[in-house]
Amino acid sequence: MAGTDSTQNAILHENGPAIILVGAQLGENIGKAVRAMYNFGLTDLRLVAPRDGWPNDAAWPAAAGADVVLENARVYATTADAIQDLHHVYATTARMRDMVKPILTPRKCAAVMREQVDNGLKVGLLFGPEKAGLKNEDVAPCDAIVSVPLNPAFASINLAQAVVLLAYEWFQAGDETPEEYTPTLETTPATGEELQGLFDHLEGELLEAGYLRHEKRRPTMVRNLRNMLSRARFTQEEVRTLRGVIRALATGGGPEWQKEKAAKGKKG
Amino acid sequence: MAGTDSTQNAILHENGPAIILVGAQLGENIGKAVRAMYNFGLTDLRLVAPRDGWPNDAAWPAAAGADVVLENARVYATTADAIQDLHHVYATTARMRDMVKPILTPRKCAAVMREQVDNGLKVGLLFGPEKAGLKNEDVAPCDAIVSVPLNPAFASINLAQAVVLLAYEWFQAGDETPEEYTPTLETTPATGEELQGLFDHLEGELLEAGYLRHEKRRPTMVRNLRNMLSRARFTQEEVRTLRGVIRALATGGGPEWQKEKAAKGKKG
Repeated sequence: MAGTDSTQNAILHENGPAIILVGAQLGENIGKAVRAMYNFGLTDLRLVAPRDGWPNDAAWPAAAGADVVLENARVYATTADAIQDLHHVYATTARMRDMVKPILTPRKCAAVMREQVDNGLKVGLLFGPEKAGLKNEDVAPCDAIVSVPLNPAFASINLAQAVVLLAYEWFQAGDETPEEYTPTLETTPATGEELQGLFDHLEGELLEAGYLRHEKRRPTMVRNLRNMLSRARFTQEEVRTLRGVIRALATGGGPEWQKEKAAKGKKG
Repeated sequence: MAGTDSTQNAILHENGPAIILVGAQLGENIGKAVRAMYNFGLTDLRLVAPRDGWPNDAAWPAAAGADVVLENARVYATTADAIQDLHHVYATTARMRDMVKPILTPRKCAAVMREQVDNGLKVGLLFGPEKAGLKNEDVAPCDAIVSVPLNPAFASINLAQAVVLLAYEWFQAGDETPEEYTPTLETTPATGEELQGLFDHLEGELLEAGYLRHEKRRPTMVRNLRNMLSRARFTQEEVRTLRGVIRALATGGGPEWQKEKAAKGKKG
């Protein structure tokens, strides 16, 4: 999806959760995870014993421009090293563990992390290697498990997909985008008077054309027309367009157009 | 993330939204989108003029086993053909359009689609080509635009990532996983009596060891200990483990262990 606008101010959450990739195998997957992080404003990448070493050339193209996150990545030998400055760590895994430990949805985890970060605490999300996932010894010191509710018969999520879901929920937990809005752009919604003008115009022409000739059914037909046309919440420009449409239909385009059309027809 | 359990029943939403990929370029991206669909129970894949034709061998490995979705994919020449049986279609895009059209968050869109599907209607989600995104003429006939709130300075989402976010929200909108729970596995939470036994044991040994010798501070110290130990919500097994730990610390392991250790020390 296109849409990056470098003139817009970045929304970065530098105190947001660290994304800790344990034993990641492919540089490409690290790059994709980083792209997802940066989409949602996260910048603290920590790599625990990446299989192919670090830096890894395959990460850069997949990060699609989120180079600043890759450049600031920190590499650790063990998970314990990677989490030592963090107050709360959550382990992402789909696999049931032989452990009595709270399991959170990504949404709940995001809400909990937001509160912790707002209180000045440092938090992190732990992700395991592509195939095997996290080991029990990596999960044990974590506060809780985060597990994505999904189709249990096909529950294997790609590493970058797991990162995107958690980063997405983190961002949404603090985002104030209205769940629905209609941008007006350069337009102005039509006023009641303008809409009424449209209705009067349309109904006048329809009376003329015999469409509303049944007096008994007329009030219902008019009400239905007004209802369906109101639902679209036309702008002033759109009301002008529609009045042009009605005029064209009612007059066949007017005598000049008819003459022009007839002339074209002769040429053809 | 590992975790697929083929013994679990699949959760499939055969009436869930059709995923319509317009002009997708890489088979690998189609495969990844399909993997994400199937993770969240979606099965209706529609391809509009895929750049490299169809079937595309590169899709299968990336789908990671969601072959049934790929095999049932339908191919169309135009977007209009692909949506002709659908009642509601939503266009996913990050780009502002020169159109007065409602913009929904993925979460809101998922809620709206759930309601429509519950009412027997057919719905679809439209995704554009990897680089360019949807054209205005594809967006125009849609009910609304779906846009993911994200870092506006880095808003380019990978095609498969966009599919995973929408499919995820669709699934969550009807999912009843509790936002937080602690599986008890084969264990039983400790009873109040068992916890009290643990406290009594610990406090008795601490009295013995002089840790609680300040009578004035003792009630606070005891209360703090009980509070911190209650917070972990121990199981019966864990209470037994902890009582073993207290015993070992208090006795140094007991006379037999001391003898054994001394013997080892001599050997070493």
